[in-house]
Amino acid sequence: MRLDFVTIFPDYFAPLELSLLGKARENGLLDVRVHDLRGWTDDVHRTVDDSPYGGGPGMIMKPEPWGRALTDLSGQSAAVHRAASSDVPERPRVIILTPAGRPFDQAYAQDLAASPWLIFCCGRYEGLDARVGESWGDDEISIGDYVLAGGEVAALVIVEAVVRLLPGVLGNAESALDDSFSHGLLEAPAYTRPPEWEGLLVPAVLRSGDHGAISRWRTEQSHKRTRDTRPDLLPDDA
Amino acid sequence: MRLDFVTIFPDYFAPLELSLLGKARENGLLDVRVHDLRGWTDDVHRTVDDSPYGGGPGMIMKPEPWGRALTDLSGQSAAVHRAASSDVPERPRVIILTPAGRPFDQAYAQDLAASPWLIFCCGRYEGLDARVGESWGDDEISIGDYVLAGGEVAALVIVEAVVRLLPGVLGNAESALDDSFSHGLLEAPAYTRPPEWEGLLVPAVLRSGDHGAISRWRTEQSHKRTRDTRPDLLPDDA
Repeated sequence: MRLDFVTIFPDYFAPLELSLLGKARENGLLDVRVHDLRGWTDDVHRTVDDSPYGGGPGMIMKPEPWGRALTDLSGQSAAVHRAASSDVPERPRVIILTPAGRPFDQAYAQDLAASPWLIFCCGRYEGLDARVGESWGDDEISIGDYVLAGGEVAALVIVEAVVRLLPGVLGNAESALDDSFSHGLLEAPAYTRPPEWEGLLVPAVLRSGDHGAISRWRTEQSHKRTRDTRPDLLPDDA
Repeated sequence: MRLDFVTIFPDYFAPLELSLLGKARENGLLDVRVHDLRGWTDDVHRTVDDSPYGGGPGMIMKPEPWGRALTDLSGQSAAVHRAASSDVPERPRVIILTPAGRPFDQAYAQDLAASPWLIFCCGRYEGLDARVGESWGDDEISIGDYVLAGGEVAALVIVEAVVRLLPGVLGNAESALDDSFSHGLLEAPAYTRPPEWEGLLVPAVLRSGDHGAISRWRTEQSHKRTRDTRPDLLPDDA
């Protein structure tokens, strides 16, 4: 999978060197390229923002540097990009991070994991001129109902969620199978040694060796936790 | 505000040097401390994980290193921490990042912004032994319905959302007032120069100078966008 990030803070992507992501890059599973948007400006001040039409606080990111960046990276014009089927492997999927986007979730992560090439447009200030999304945006994504300082951390979140789903990325020590949300419920609480810690005991059933009982306990706990913390995740008939 | 991060990947927090967060640190508004959990292990291999009781894939983070880290950082035992009122300024608010936690949103960010001291426990693998949360956790937070490789990026998300709400952090060029979610609706699309770009025009009303019309257009667009992308955010009578 190829991942491009366009940003005015390239250093934000240092975490991509670490852990699973770092290993996936070493193993050739990921081709990661981080780009400074200011490389596509054309003035001496390398300006990326300007005042909003209609007034109001804050600055909007100018469309031209984004358009140039996306044309260069994709090797095609916005019109060709828009017209190309999303199944063409040499066509990147262009993602704009914005709190006004479609909410990211585990199913969305699985969908993105099937794409061979993602370009993340990481806005700052009050976001990108809306025409960039109109011309280029295949996806406008929000990672949650909160406002960040920029799209960089949202891109990192999406990449972490997506990359761990790629074949060969998770080792034996980890597993995507039993995760929260994979089955629509939160995971049951987990415990490891010691059996007693600070006066707190591991639930006896987990030490019983009775696999049927353990499985029932986990299902119960999973339902209880979801009911207590996230009743919105339960189907109406639960 | 003091922020502590406990992690096995301290380098993940390099982005805290940049942009708004970096400036807030320079200006003395933030006291940021990143800690390697392995410093609180007591074996030669610096082990932080072990197999889950009851079987199953993956590894669970052992409770002891977390207990020692939190005792050292807070300067008190778990029992004293639990008993202390959350209004005591020298009492940290201990946050565990987990997909099974309470969903993070803009109101939650505002609530955390009122705390003088946050400690983020960033788990990896299949998460922390549940007893750490029982003893120490003031908050168990999820940033969204997806599974990450670890809590580090979730902590970065929360810190970005929280810090920009602190007085003195956002300059004149940026504003937290009109943001998406501040009024329960998504923001209207925004535009800057040029008036025509790649054949796409800025909506005429935004160039009209008619402030009443601009305000009505933005309200309409805000409702339309919310209805189209996030009908779940609208009150039932909207």
